[in-house]
Amino acid sequence: MTTVYDVTDWIIPGSSVTCYTDIGAVINSMIADIKSQQPSQAAKPGAVIYIPPGDYSLKTRVTVDVSYLSIRGSGHGFTSLGIRYATSDTSAWHEIWPGGSHIRVENTDGNVEAFIVTRSGNPRLSSIEFEDFCLDGIAFVPNQNSYVNGKVGIRFDSATDSARVNNMGMVFLEHAIVARDVDAMSITGNFLCECGNAIELTSSGQASTVTNNLIGAGNFGYSIFAESHFGLLVSGNNIFPRGKDLVHLKNCSLSIVTSNRLHNFYAGIVTLEGTCTENLITANHFYRATESTSNGLDDLFGLVQINGSNNSVTANHFSFAVPPGQITPSGATPTIILVKSGDGNSLATNHIVAGVSVKTVVLDGSTTNTHILDSGTTAELQAYSTSYSFRPTP
Amino acid sequence: MTTVYDVTDWIIPGSSVTCYTDIGAVINSMIADIKSQQPSQAAKPGAVIYIPPGDYSLKTRVTVDVSYLSIRGSGHGFTSLGIRYATSDTSAWHEIWPGGSHIRVENTDGNVEAFIVTRSGNPRLSSIEFEDFCLDGIAFVPNQNSYVNGKVGIRFDSATDSARVNNMGMVFLEHAIVARDVDAMSITGNFLCECGNAIELTSSGQASTVTNNLIGAGNFGYSIFAESHFGLLVSGNNIFPRGKDLVHLKNCSLSIVTSNRLHNFYAGIVTLEGTCTENLITANHFYRATESTSNGLDDLFGLVQINGSNNSVTANHFSFAVPPGQITPSGATPTIILVKSGDGNSLATNHIVAGVSVKTVVLDGSTTNTHILDSGTTAELQAYSTSYSFRPTP
Amino acid sequence: MTTVYDVTDWIIPGSSVTCYTDIGAVINSMIADIKSQQPSQAAKPGAVIYIPPGDYSLKTRVTVDVSYLSIRGSGHGFTSLGIRYATSDTSAWHEIWPGGSHIRVENTDGNVEAFIVTRSGNPRLSSIEFEDFCLDGIAFVPNQNSYVNGKVGIRFDSATDSARVNNMGMVFLEHAIVARDVDAMSITGNFLCECGNAIELTSSGQASTVTNNLIGAGNFGYSIFAESHFGLLVSGNNIFPRGKDLVHLKNCSLSIVTSNRLHNFYAGIVTLEGTCTENLITANHFYRATESTSNGLDDLFGLVQINGSNNSVTANHFSFAVPPGQITPSGATPTIILVKSGDGNSLATNHIVAGVSVKTVVLDGSTTNTHILDSGTTAELQAYSTSYSFRPTP
Repeated sequence: MTTVYDVTDWIIPGSSVTCYTDIGAVINSMIADIKSQQPSQAAKPGAVIYIPPGDYSLKTRVTVDVSYLSIRGSGHGFTSLGIRYATSDTSAWHEIWPGGSHIRVENTDGNVEAFIVTRSGNPRLSSIEFEDFCLDGIAFVPNQNSYVNGKVGIRFDSATDSARVNNMGMVFLEHAIVARDVDAMSITGNFLCECGNAIELTSSGQASTVTNNLIGAGNFGYSIFAESHFGLLVSGNNIFPRGKDLVHLKNCSLSIVTSNRLHNFYAGIVTLEGTCTENLITANHFYRATESTSNGLDDLFGLVQINGSNNSVTANHFSFAVPPGQITPSGATPTIILVKSGDGNSLATNHIVAGVSVKTVVLDGSTTNTHILDSGTTAELQAYSTSYSFRPTP
Repeated sequence: MTTVYDVTDWIIPGSSVTCYTDIGAVINSMIADIKSQQPSQAAKPGAVIYIPPGDYSLKTRVTVDVSYLSIRGSGHGFTSLGIRYATSDTSAWHEIWPGGSHIRVENTDGNVEAFIVTRSGNPRLSSIEFEDFCLDGIAFVPNQNSYVNGKVGIRFDSATDSARVNNMGMVFLEHAIVARDVDAMSITGNFLCECGNAIELTSSGQASTVTNNLIGAGNFGYSIFAESHFGLLVSGNNIFPRGKDLVHLKNCSLSIVTSNRLHNFYAGIVTLEGTCTENLITANHFYRATESTSNGLDDLFGLVQINGSNNSVTANHFSFAVPPGQITPSGATPTIILVKSGDGNSLATNHIVAGVSVKTVVLDGSTTNTHILDSGTTAELQAYSTSYSFRPTP
Repeated sequence: MTTVYDVTDWIIPGSSVTCYTDIGAVINSMIADIKSQQPSQAAKPGAVIYIPPGDYSLKTRVTVDVSYLSIRGSGHGFTSLGIRYATSDTSAWHEIWPGGSHIRVENTDGNVEAFIVTRSGNPRLSSIEFEDFCLDGIAFVPNQNSYVNGKVGIRFDSATDSARVNNMGMVFLEHAIVARDVDAMSITGNFLCECGNAIELTSSGQASTVTNNLIGAGNFGYSIFAESHFGLLVSGNNIFPRGKDLVHLKNCSLSIVTSNRLHNFYAGIVTLEGTCTENLITANHFYRATESTSNGLDDLFGLVQINGSNNSVTANHFSFAVPPGQITPSGATPTIILVKSGDGNSLATNHIVAGVSVKTVVLDGSTTNTHILDSGTTAELQAYSTSYSFRPTP
């Protein structure tokens, strides 16, 4: 019995399909083989499926429903399709597609995902790993700037524990990674760029980490989204435009966003939506620049917007570089940090640099007991509430 | 001469033992072969030993006594044995054991370790690497909640330089990694959960890093312990319960604990024991919740306790969520940061959130020249010393 | 067609050269093969070249001019040549050279580089990867403490996107990694020690990351150097002596240096040279000790020196441990943070520990609008400018 599979030498019984014509069908056949080879409940170590460098087409969605499956390539293979499609004549180019262990996501099975991880029954799936290959959505529609094609790279669709997505490359997918109900997941070292949305942690989850990734999303998508997560660590990521929001936490608690570099073309860089409590946002570099696209948010939204109580925003640097004529609503004084709701939020030692007059902190009338220390001058505070303490930056 | 070994195709000369019956004996035989193949002092590049996914039993401890040996699998293979043992009927479960490159630690040789790294003479061992396989202690005794079975995953027992333990999974070991006298070691990307102790750096060491790990230890064990270390970096870890202490530094100096998420059920989250000097604890998220177990420490111990001088505790968030009736000693006002000894410690810009009245900072009568800035109100300071400066959070 | 190459079984057509006699020639032959096997612009996935553990000599520089090439070994193989050369008698040593996938850099082709990455035309090279092998410069001249031999490990010499250098070991090279015009590059998990310079990002670049490395450079070289970079993230590195400068940013903007441990024997630990704007230096541990070597800078240079405007230096710890008799110029009061030029720089919540009287902050007469909060006492500020605000540490 082997536990080491190679897509290039697998023959689907009775079929002429190969990894080049449909790598999805090949991997599904391998998974079926794993299940037949490992029938005993007490002896299911799983397997590793290797994808050598090459150009593969995926026509059939892969369903991962065995624990301990590792799917690995030898190259994340990113190249910028954005630059390529924006170039009128590429006939002299050396190459025009991504590469490495390169899977073209071209489903003909009616599904939108290249990979789905899902299983019913107990226990939940454990230790599924995706590593070091490339998922390429090929093109957006109706145009290459839309970020729309419906395609999903990897969807975790039932609860999992201790999954990993490491060192992958993904490009031109509407959704790169969508993971629901993940616990103790690691998403590390990935290159997720020119995707509509990069990382979406939905439904719930705890004690997961998103670290050391390079991320660029679309102007209506999320770079990192987490819903009802608890104890999430977002650290050491270099996140560049675009992105409706670079880190968007919805109803999350006791999580930490630290040591990230966060660059966007719009308001909305870190948003705590709904009821977010006791989260820490510290040691991040925020940079708001401009281009002609929009994410629909105006400059009163805040680079950071907080909804919920007892959060900390400490020791961050903010650079706001928007020419006066491009500020929206026209004539408005832009907001850097908006405390939109909640009690007991703390903002301290944030250095805000702006080429125009800004409100470094705005407190909604509903907010109470906000503490604002060394995060701007008195003139830069806009308090619609009277329930706060304030120490201006000297 | 090969330098690439695979445990599944190795035959021990004159023996019927296989990797499935005793992977320890197989790897020891490989190491003996490496030594016989590389007799020249000037030509000892070492080797890589590959462990494909599979279930292996280890009966004999592996002794690693050659430099540049990499032992690698294709899957960290964690699953929760805690949940499994707490489930009364698992007969319908898909699988019941960890997997991946899965080694059952079942020594019959009288040793407690699966792997020991040790060599006498010069130079010390360099660049030993363990990567991406699973060490499974199987069960605790006398019960599955005891965290006791005497088993050690990997012990580094003589001085080493530039060792790595990366992307491993370890479960149900009393001690996952014990490493003495390590310099410039990297412990990165591991999943060390449901172990009594996760990482113990003993005796001495310098310039090592513990980064990007997911860790959960037992209620009488350490998540991360370091003794007489200098220049240790503990960053980007997501550490969850339990743990007698999540980061415990004993007689350590000039080290940094940053950007970690730290969640425990007890007092004792970061402790600087003995004489700890000039360490930095910054940009961490501390969360103290409760469950029915205990680590033996009461709520006057502090979530952070400092012994020693000139340390910094800056820009952290603390959440303390203990119902009044569960506080010990009964009726006590819990301590968040206890400066138990030392001169010149600095606490600044820490945001403490608590559902009950707490002392955010307590100064022992022996302490001198502590600086406390923006880390609580005047009422929240308990100073048994008069040698300190204080600026309350406005 | 294969895309998986192994240096140990490759035969250069018509040649008796092997990987042991010249691995450079072997890899160049492989790259020529890749180009001949992948002639179509639309089908160039690249390849992976595997270097098993072994001792290889490189006589001919490798030119990487295809995208998506991964070159990988199974062991970073570092050992300290410094200790070995400082030992008078190593005849009883177990081993005397580095190992793992170990390449001796011994060019006889007139070039100084082991690897050069360069291509003309469009697009720029993408997703070149170097991983987990050892580049060994063997010896310095005229003596083993000079850090001089002219050798370069890897030079990226034309613009690249999304390149990676991960988990490499490099030793006794005058320059380990020199990379010009890199965008979105990752340099992660490397062990770059006893090299003259470790990481030099020259000319320009954006959105790159240098994370989780162990680095030690020479007393006249840079541990990390970046020129005209924008959005660089330097995080989670453990950088030890020596180094003329540990993190040296020249004309860089909007970058972040966070969560690093920084130990040097000289002034000059983090320097912002030229015109550096809106960078964030936070949550780092700085330690200045001494030895008999020098980098040529005196103690008025600053452990941090800032040239440029609107930078932030927040929540760092500084330890200054220089005996009074070793301070230069003799009798001078050492400078910890020197703001040498610029407007609107912000220094906040820095804890400085020193055994001698120091100036924690010195403002050049040319500086304007510096904000200095909780970073020393009034006596510890030396302001040659009158344009600043100051709040002393209580």
